[in-house]
Amino acid sequence: MSQPLLDKHRATLDGALNAIQTRAYWSAYSEMPSPKVYGETAAEDGKKAFEAHLGQRFELDQPGQSGWQGGEQSPYGITLDVQYPVCDHEALIAAGQQAMNGWQKLGAAGRTGLCLEILARLNAQSFEIAHAVMMTTGQGWMMAFQAGAPHAQERGLEAVAYAWREQSFVPAEATWEKPQGKNPPLVMKKHFEIVGHGVGVVVGCGTFPTWNTYPGLFAALATGNAVIVKPHGNAILPAAITVRTIRRVLAENGIDPNLVSLCVAGQRSTTQALVTHPAVKSIDFTGGNVFGQWLIDNCRQARVYAELAGVNNIVVDSTDSYKRMLGNLAFSLALYSGQMCTTSQAIFVPAGGVETEDGHKSYDEVCADLAGAVSAFLAKPEVALAVLGAVQSTDTLKRIAEADSGALGKVVLASGKLDNPEFPKAEVRTPVLLACDAADEKAYMEERFGPISFIVKVADTAAAIALSERIVTTHGALTAGIYSTRAEVIDAMTAATLRSKVALSINLSGGVFVNQSAAYSDYHGTGGNPAANASYADAAFVANRFVVVQRRYHI
Amino acid sequence: MSQPLLDKHRATLDGALNAIQTRAYWSAYSEMPSPKVYGETAAEDGKKAFEAHLGQRFELDQPGQSGWQGGEQSPYGITLDVQYPVCDHEALIAAGQQAMNGWQKLGAAGRTGLCLEILARLNAQSFEIAHAVMMTTGQGWMMAFQAGAPHAQERGLEAVAYAWREQSFVPAEATWEKPQGKNPPLVMKKHFEIVGHGVGVVVGCGTFPTWNTYPGLFAALATGNAVIVKPHGNAILPAAITVRTIRRVLAENGIDPNLVSLCVAGQRSTTQALVTHPAVKSIDFTGGNVFGQWLIDNCRQARVYAELAGVNNIVVDSTDSYKRMLGNLAFSLALYSGQMCTTSQAIFVPAGGVETEDGHKSYDEVCADLAGAVSAFLAKPEVALAVLGAVQSTDTLKRIAEADSGALGKVVLASGKLDNPEFPKAEVRTPVLLACDAADEKAYMEERFGPISFIVKVADTAAAIALSERIVTTHGALTAGIYSTRAEVIDAMTAATLRSKVALSINLSGGVFVNQSAAYSDYHGTGGNPAANASYADAAFVANRFVVVQRRYHI
Repeated sequence: MSQPLLDKHRATLDGALNAIQTRAYWSAYSEMPSPKVYGETAAEDGKKAFEAHLGQRFELDQPGQSGWQGGEQSPYGITLDVQYPVCDHEALIAAGQQAMNGWQKLGAAGRTGLCLEILARLNAQSFEIAHAVMMTTGQGWMMAFQAGAPHAQERGLEAVAYAWREQSFVPAEATWEKPQGKNPPLVMKKHFEIVGHGVGVVVGCGTFPTWNTYPGLFAALATGNAVIVKPHGNAILPAAITVRTIRRVLAENGIDPNLVSLCVAGQRSTTQALVTHPAVKSIDFTGGNVFGQWLIDNCRQARVYAELAGVNNIVVDSTDSYKRMLGNLAFSLALYSGQMCTTSQAIFVPAGGVETEDGHKSYDEVCADLAGAVSAFLAKPEVALAVLGAVQSTDTLKRIAEADSGALGKVVLASGKLDNPEFPKAEVRTPVLLACDAADEKAYMEERFGPISFIVKVADTAAAIALSERIVTTHGALTAGIYSTRAEVIDAMTAATLRSKVALSINLSGGVFVNQSAAYSDYHGTGGNPAANASYADAAFVANRFVVVQRRYHI
Repeated sequence: MSQPLLDKHRATLDGALNAIQTRAYWSAYSEMPSPKVYGETAAEDGKKAFEAHLGQRFELDQPGQSGWQGGEQSPYGITLDVQYPVCDHEALIAAGQQAMNGWQKLGAAGRTGLCLEILARLNAQSFEIAHAVMMTTGQGWMMAFQAGAPHAQERGLEAVAYAWREQSFVPAEATWEKPQGKNPPLVMKKHFEIVGHGVGVVVGCGTFPTWNTYPGLFAALATGNAVIVKPHGNAILPAAITVRTIRRVLAENGIDPNLVSLCVAGQRSTTQALVTHPAVKSIDFTGGNVFGQWLIDNCRQARVYAELAGVNNIVVDSTDSYKRMLGNLAFSLALYSGQMCTTSQAIFVPAGGVETEDGHKSYDEVCADLAGAVSAFLAKPEVALAVLGAVQSTDTLKRIAEADSGALGKVVLASGKLDNPEFPKAEVRTPVLLACDAADEKAYMEERFGPISFIVKVADTAAAIALSERIVTTHGALTAGIYSTRAEVIDAMTAATLRSKVALSINLSGGVFVNQSAAYSDYHGTGGNPAANASYADAAFVANRFVVVQRRYHI
């Protein structure tokens, strides 16, 4: 059977398949917002496309629509006022189930080709989506472009590649011929059909409405399922643009667009009814522990892929690149005001200080030097505004204020409020650094989402490594780091992270940061500690989203 | 790194890998108990080895032993009186966790080689294991040999092959080099380590103590986990022999044998404490809905792979091989007295009867003819005893008596009690066939494990197909069948089974039976209906049993 879309995007798929196998660097979508790649007018066109949504009703032509709803508040303080269709979740589920029939019959190759076409179309909309991500999440422009568009697309493509690898391994048919000694063999023809488990729901988060949505969305879609995207109430637009494009591409290719829909739910009870519906068989969630645990406890009819809170941490033992280490950490803490699920919250420093190429640094010196590095990095307002972005939620503002008050530990670096001339109403905050003792577990041993980090005084490096392991095992983490010039310390930290099952970054001092994970190469989450029960992406992320139904008969 | 055991068994692994990809017929272990394959003295040696266990203490040298326990009652009525070590489950878990370190360090290739060696050693013990299976489960000899030994080993090897496919896809390391325009590239070295999720518990069943245990056992083991086998209280010996051999092979190869242990638990509370232990991360279970659902509800710390009850069913629309169809069904209903999770329980026949090559057969004729076919098939005592085996549990005897009383439907064929001259105390029963109306849902729409089947009168074929779909969707099934000479009927049944997610056998009239599934080719369970949330075997069966922990650093 000819698969024109699969043929069209074959090189992209092959590149992704090679990349997930080698885990070397590879990229399908340019992370530079360059006119050479995206077209001379792409930046301007994308901005206009974004602006055209403002103050308008975002038509999706979905079934069961009962009204409109908006309410997104931009962290940059601009007026969004986009209205989205409110649709009965039962109608969306029923329409999705109906659409699954044609989607299943298309087969894995047809579905994969269509997913690749969708990703290409989303890539062409990168500027529009980047503006939508920036203005709903508070990310700085460059991050909104990269993480919101090409990097999110890469994570989606990665999921499609894993899904294709697993599905293409299942033969469509087989002839089974069992010898019977001197008698004629038993011969059977067998057919194997891949069938999606059911409707998938992807619950988006307010900070990364595409990067954390595309993996589950494309994993569920590629494996034959309908998908309902339930965006965060304050980051609907990037999801709505995505869903509209997907629906268009589906319809253009003869697939019922109701296969993918947007569920804007004003009330928690609607979301709860959606995710506990018997027809919903998978839920992808990124967010806090309270709702995440509720999903795991209550959505027993579905497989729940959950990325929850964690306490990311770094052990500082010694370094031969003190300044570069501080610079690396400062960037990582400042990026998007620490509103990343991968930002380090606890930095463990031995009470006796650390050895560096500039000689011994006491614990207090490390605190002061890191504070100085953050301040120096953010000294230029244009750098600070570009890197920090804006604070996404009032809850984060409250947490910053609480940390600033000294209630959680000694303030080593107070958070500052910056003015953004372009966006006067933007809430911009610089990171707050706190010093505390390892015994102050209540302070640093729960996630305090936002630009709040603790420099924790620990008895010694061995205690720091043990503490890191205990935190990851009990509270979870997506990232861990170690700085040391001693092989035995790195070995001990490696062993600890193998036990606690967290990704480890060692002596980062250049252009790679602990809070960044690269598609195809870095697993985002291991699925083995409380911060996440799944990983972007691996076989486990896709293999349980479909079943194989066989039939057999004699020939 | 040299992997002598992997090299030694490379052809076996390659054969299995090819088989799971093509799903054509393939076999690693001979299903014929032939002296040419197993050795001239194998049958005699195996029988002696089995007999040597009787009345003895089965030494395993496990930690935390507090006493001995036996109590197996042979369905054949012979005295077993084997005593097994009772060990503190906490001690077994702690020892398993300890042993996991060395097992993880061995790497996927080393683990796979050792699993293949274990399987080869188990294969060499096929006669001993077959006798143990026969005498604990009541299976007939040939079935005990085939299903209990080589076929179980194939299912274990299948799981090892899937585990190897997924693990070998993960590179041990990668060099990640990201271009930076005119600047030097970012270069990182990354290491990827496969780490098992934790201790796996495999809860065995009383009817297939190896066939239903080996898939989970080898899937968990190959992916880096410790495994505790918790056998059914009446089928301990096959599991104990298996565990002892595994422990020996592990020890011979420098791996802590406590990686795999046997947990004989006299009290339900001990089993519950074992399976809910925080260190237990996977549970493989085959058995009834009550305990299965308890596991799913209570073992939230673990992934539960459960094969539960179902209502397997067959739709009879029409046939051009009436006699052969009846013969095929008769064999399937009689085999091991219907004590297979794949035996058909409900046979749907249109009220208007069915068309055959011998002309029209009324519903009543079909009932009488199937009863006649079962009786004829079992007419020769030596055939009957070999096929029926013995009834495994008193609960099944009670269910047969209830069915025989006519309480569940009109008795079309009463169950008969046969004498087995070789085993005078064996409880041997022929199948009972009941006729009932489709409206009598309470009778046929719950699993009645054992040789009890219903010939259900349904309005017409379309109603039968709809009923089959509803039963599979709501009560689950591992197998479904259709007999029809009409393509549109087969298409409708195919569509129904794709929706309800159950394997379909079409017009079986020869030497393949609906209740048989062949390793590498037939998926046992789809994982998509209530009878089982997993399949033997596919990627989903192995992918979630390990995580990948990475570390990265600049070079």
